[in-house]
Amino acid sequence: MDLRVIGARAKEAASYLNSLGITEKNEGLRQAAQALLDGEEDILTANQEDVIRAAENGMSQGMIDRLELTPDRLQAMADGLLQIAELPDPVGEVISMKPRPNGLLIGEKRVPLGVVGMIYEARPNVTSDAFGLCFKTGNAVILKGGSDAIESNKEIVKWLQTGLSRAGLPEDSLQLITDTDRAVTTEFMRLNEFVDVLIPRGGAGLIRSVVQNSTVPVIETGTGNCHIYVDETADFEMALNIIENAKTQRIGVCNACESLVVHRSIAEEFLPLLAARLAKKSVEVRADEGARGIVPEFMEATEEDWGTEYLDYILSLKLVDSLDEAIRHINRYNTGHSEAIITQDYNHAQEFLNRIDAAAVYVNASTRFTDGGEFGFGAEIGISTQKLHARGPMGLKALTTTKYIIYGNGQVRP
Amino acid sequence: MDLRVIGARAKEAASYLNSLGITEKNEGLRQAAQALLDGEEDILTANQEDVIRAAENGMSQGMIDRLELTPDRLQAMADGLLQIAELPDPVGEVISMKPRPNGLLIGEKRVPLGVVGMIYEARPNVTSDAFGLCFKTGNAVILKGGSDAIESNKEIVKWLQTGLSRAGLPEDSLQLITDTDRAVTTEFMRLNEFVDVLIPRGGAGLIRSVVQNSTVPVIETGTGNCHIYVDETADFEMALNIIENAKTQRIGVCNACESLVVHRSIAEEFLPLLAARLAKKSVEVRADEGARGIVPEFMEATEEDWGTEYLDYILSLKLVDSLDEAIRHINRYNTGHSEAIITQDYNHAQEFLNRIDAAAVYVNASTRFTDGGEFGFGAEIGISTQKLHARGPMGLKALTTTKYIIYGNGQVRP
Repeated sequence: MDLRVIGARAKEAASYLNSLGITEKNEGLRQAAQALLDGEEDILTANQEDVIRAAENGMSQGMIDRLELTPDRLQAMADGLLQIAELPDPVGEVISMKPRPNGLLIGEKRVPLGVVGMIYEARPNVTSDAFGLCFKTGNAVILKGGSDAIESNKEIVKWLQTGLSRAGLPEDSLQLITDTDRAVTTEFMRLNEFVDVLIPRGGAGLIRSVVQNSTVPVIETGTGNCHIYVDETADFEMALNIIENAKTQRIGVCNACESLVVHRSIAEEFLPLLAARLAKKSVEVRADEGARGIVPEFMEATEEDWGTEYLDYILSLKLVDSLDEAIRHINRYNTGHSEAIITQDYNHAQEFLNRIDAAAVYVNASTRFTDGGEFGFGAEIGISTQKLHARGPMGLKALTTTKYIIYGNGQVRP
Repeated sequence: MDLRVIGARAKEAASYLNSLGITEKNEGLRQAAQALLDGEEDILTANQEDVIRAAENGMSQGMIDRLELTPDRLQAMADGLLQIAELPDPVGEVISMKPRPNGLLIGEKRVPLGVVGMIYEARPNVTSDAFGLCFKTGNAVILKGGSDAIESNKEIVKWLQTGLSRAGLPEDSLQLITDTDRAVTTEFMRLNEFVDVLIPRGGAGLIRSVVQNSTVPVIETGTGNCHIYVDETADFEMALNIIENAKTQRIGVCNACESLVVHRSIAEEFLPLLAARLAKKSVEVRADEGARGIVPEFMEATEEDWGTEYLDYILSLKLVDSLDEAIRHINRYNTGHSEAIITQDYNHAQEFLNRIDAAAVYVNASTRFTDGGEFGFGAEIGISTQKLHARGPMGLKALTTTKYIIYGNGQVRP
């Protein structure tokens, strides 16, 4: 189907959803959840097609695992929609309302963004999550999933639309771009007339491509070259626990730690303990010369390592002479995601919090907490690593904007 | 100078400004204001060069008027900086701070954006305004003014930098791109490594070019195809006053009214009054067939008129049969700026406020009020017509972002 037709339909649906009450929206989410379960056979059959094709095309086992759906996973997708139905609706709140000297009453009201575009890879659960969060906030959504998951996505969208239809709500609230041609994706990124914001979710290559090619405003998400700085006064046991957790609790995620920065004055004592702890989890450490002088088993780090998000059992390590050097190093190489300091020093903690330029800055905690659920948002549509609009985990509020509503009684500008 | 060098210097300055207190920032603004006055001779001489060249190149008198500086206008620029110094500083406020069940204390802190890029046309006063607003919010700014104002801008920037230097603050807090080559502007729009946000200010062509070519996140500003809808129950005298004000109080601005929508049931009575009122100000009306049947002197409107921002003594006019039709027409052709309804009907007022998709929606008031000063923000850097980050007049808060600061005591993710 023509992208402009899809765009126009989405805009029409968004205009309808804009005025929809919370009761109707929650009923739509519940019907959509039920429809997903009703469609189990269709969805799992289509998913198996995708999985078989992916295996034939040589997709890695890890990727296939992300692509594959099971009855349990489908249930989890439906449960996710029911959970979103339980969350408070940010739309409609008037954040402030103040009179001006001329009698105008100016209010700022939270409203849906309008039409949200999502570009993502081969995880079919993103399809229902993205729909749920956008629908709850009164947005129409246009989805462009990875071609590897195309059969699964078609069925998931069809059944979600069935649910909406049962609730008497517009099916165009979510639409899937089924044409997997690359030129269509590029056209989608330039559909400014119909799409208010584009949110890419996936690997660094996908994100970069969207940022480079989109003329629609983008919320950049995802890549995390996260650091932990172990200060002179760090509690060693706490530092080891946090490093182990941030590096190994889940390896392929954006809030995992990728690089350590350690104060030189504690290196002699701390690095052997670190090496022992990481060896248990088979983590490869790539270190600078100073660190390798203390632990010769560490591999040699190159300049490239400081900027690399490994998403693997690898960690880079640099020694510094001061907190200032640590902060400058981190601000130079980080991706604006999550950074932590381990310290017992009050002033160092405050300086780190103030000067580090990232979405989430931690004192004495694992970077793994940067997550909508962990932050108490109930759900997230992604983690923004840019500074405009939303920064860090994006919950429902990030899917809204505001408009000024002005009550007058005949005012003209003098 | 190499743009990457400018970018790196801006980033270094931004890192310094990030930690600067309000006292130092305000002193910098006051010194900059004083320096502008000290540099009066240099600045006005350079400006005359620009003016003479512009006249030789056949620039219109209106544009030359915008370009030309006088002692009074320079004083106004200096006063603008002093006014910005008086405004409260939004930076540093912790908007919320809540504990999580695991003991993490998660706060959201307002911080500078970092490096702001401004691309604008031939109004040299934007140079000091943009500097003042960015500096107050702890941002470094890179300016790319129009080539017509290049000599003026060089001197203005030099003297502002002198003021900063006298206050012991980094001159790189503002930098001017002096290379007027178009390729340099394009490179500037893709300087993602150093620039956090790009704000274009100027005509529709400039804005479109930045939106189309920039990979740096953009805040779209400016174009306003603003409508006034005269409802069945409108007070005619109020409607005429508001229309006259919104159309003619200042003709070349984005919040001026460009199009009227009138309920058919009052057209017979209202349009002759409207024609008489607008004739006094020599406003040309381009109307649909129904309206021309009532007032034959109205010119004929074409489809193109509905989407045109005239910035001139011209107004389009369409009759509708219902509020719904009015809202649909406005939502189709507006540019997301400012829209007004004139009505005495409570339900129509509420429906218009709810359904119109624009930055500012008015009941019974002139669209000319969409302005940072009129909204009580003290100053504005532009009027956003997009939905991400900021919508409507952008004051100091729009030049900030937030970061999460997290206080822990050893938490790891289970």
